Amino acid sequence: MAVYTDVAADELAEFLKHYDIGELLSYKGIAEGVENSNFLLHTTAGSFILTLYEKRVAKNDLPFFLGLMTHLASNGISCPQPVKNKSGEALSTLAGRPAAIINFLEGVWPRKPNATHCAGVGEALAKMHLAGKGFAMSRANALSVSGWRPLFEQAASRADEVQPGLRGFIETELDYLEGGVWPKNLPHGVIHADLFPDNVFFLGDQVSGIIDFTFACNDLLAYDVAICLNAWCFESDCSFNVTKARALLAAYGRERELSEAEQKALPVLARGAALRFLLTRLVDFLNVPAGALVRPKDPLEYARKLRFQQGVSSMRDYGIAASGLVA
Amino acid sequence: MAVYTDVAADELAEFLKHYDIGELLSYKGIAEGVENSNFLLHTTAGSFILTLYEKRVAKNDLPFFLGLMTHLASNGISCPQPVKNKSGEALSTLAGRPAAIINFLEGVWPRKPNATHCAGVGEALAKMHLAGKGFAMSRANALSVSGWRPLFEQAASRADEVQPGLRGFIETELDYLEGGVWPKNLPHGVIHADLFPDNVFFLGDQVSGIIDFTFACNDLLAYDVAICLNAWCFESDCSFNVTKARALLAAYGRERELSEAEQKALPVLARGAALRFLLTRLVDFLNVPAGALVRPKDPLEYARKLRFQQGVSSMRDYGIAASGLVA
Repeated sequence: MAVYTDVAADELAEFLKHYDIGELLSYKGIAEGVENSNFLLHTTAGSFILTLYEKRVAKNDLPFFLGLMTHLASNGISCPQPVKNKSGEALSTLAGRPAAIINFLEGVWPRKPNATHCAGVGEALAKMHLAGKGFAMSRANALSVSGWRPLFEQAASRADEVQPGLRGFIETELDYLEGGVWPKNLPHGVIHADLFPDNVFFLGDQVSGIIDFTFACNDLLAYDVAICLNAWCFESDCSFNVTKARALLAAYGRERELSEAEQKALPVLARGAALRFLLTRLVDFLNVPAGALVRPKDPLEYARKLRFQQGVSSMRDYGIAASGLVA
Repeated sequence: MAVYTDVAADELAEFLKHYDIGELLSYKGIAEGVENSNFLLHTTAGSFILTLYEKRVAKNDLPFFLGLMTHLASNGISCPQPVKNKSGEALSTLAGRPAAIINFLEGVWPRKPNATHCAGVGEALAKMHLAGKGFAMSRANALSVSGWRPLFEQAASRADEVQPGLRGFIETELDYLEGGVWPKNLPHGVIHADLFPDNVFFLGDQVSGIIDFTFACNDLLAYDVAICLNAWCFESDCSFNVTKARALLAAYGRERELSEAEQKALPVLARGAALRFLLTRLVDFLNVPAGALVRPKDPLEYARKLRFQQGVSSMRDYGIAASGLVA
């Protein structure tokens, strides 16, 4: 949960005078988002989310995130739309921090995703990938292969405190993934890169919106699919649910066909995706600041997921027949 | 901030079927309330607050709190109104905890209260005291004089870790307040007992509502006034602002005249009120559980306020002329 910076009522009311979204009725710090401070605003014009971007988010990246949401929303994706102020700016400053207002999306995120949810996210992800085409800005993925060793070096000396042998386990995997197996010539574009269940809203069985583009970047589209496989298709005991995987992959494939090369690469992409979250969680876990109000996520969840992915040899292990996915 | 217990979307949707408040659209854990988990719900019928009562709140007290809100609301006080389920119950169970839904009050609480806010809270408090008459249930104040020494005993051995000399300072004050100075025959009734700025909402300069009755009980009405003097009329450097005090007391007096005896007792009540929050904050400060997501409040703020109140001899020191308050 996250409210790192509080905002005074009169300061916020003054800030809102620069927008055309009515008078402030209430605002509540909400327990969503780990990187930023988020408030749910009620105004006479409706509900909005105010985000104050804290230190961990590079200020230079904000125009990419805000521009992407505007682009996706205008291309039919249900995602928050940045509200521009009277000067036409989506990005402003409040309480000494970069600040943006986006419209509020109704919907609830599934705490225990079922196969229907997995189909929903597969479809939504493919549509997002298609809608991302033509977005003019780009942003490199700092958390792809070349970014992993620096993360590992931050955590290596203390990794075995978390689990004996963890350091060697990660190092072996890192050597493997850096050794030329990572695919290069697959379709690429804008990916979400963090499409966990808490970033996908549903109303009933239908996806009502995708949120939180703080990790969005340009990378292999199939890498985004791999991140979702890890985030959506494991049970809480880290056993893999092929019914959910099949639902996710089949729904994705109906919107955007995964090429043969992408399908072949998916297991190694899923290993990389598992390692990426293992590493960032490990670094966070070992560096909880004194007085932190955020509980770090369990890195070992992703060590277990990585072990599963190391044993996958083809799409068959994800519940997809040898003939592959056909749109 | 507080969300101790998360709720699954399907569990919540199921729970809401027992109420007549429409379909669930969204729910967000909110960073308000220290004792309980609170969620802001949007349904097709409007906005509501869902509270899950955590361990620190005695289950037996919940009917008092919920009944009081219903009573006050039906007597013209703007406070949250418990929503009864289809069985006519305001109190139910969700995620293994006692749970209640109340309607959502728009408004913002003042981070830096000014004299207008102080007048607002004074008026609202007096109206609440008048509206509380005729409420049939009662609840003893566990945090009045007889409750302070047990709190002190929990913290005494470690008090000087927080500030050298703090243990002796508290003990002397406790001896004084237990020594027969505490008034007995003043008007009593239902008091809020925790009417800090974050529990009073404003729209513009007007109070739009009073929330959080988790400490409400039966006690001296003037003790509630004393709590508010401490909570609203000090600057952030703990200097006392007589303009704010005068505004608060005068506005209170216009609705409900403070008797001569109450006015005379106010300084000692304010000392007791300061000691009460000093003690509970000290106990909390010394007992932050591992992994707590709540930052404890500063006990020394209330030591400084207590020192001020020890030097007060009459209402003159609160900015009220010798003739006293006349309604």
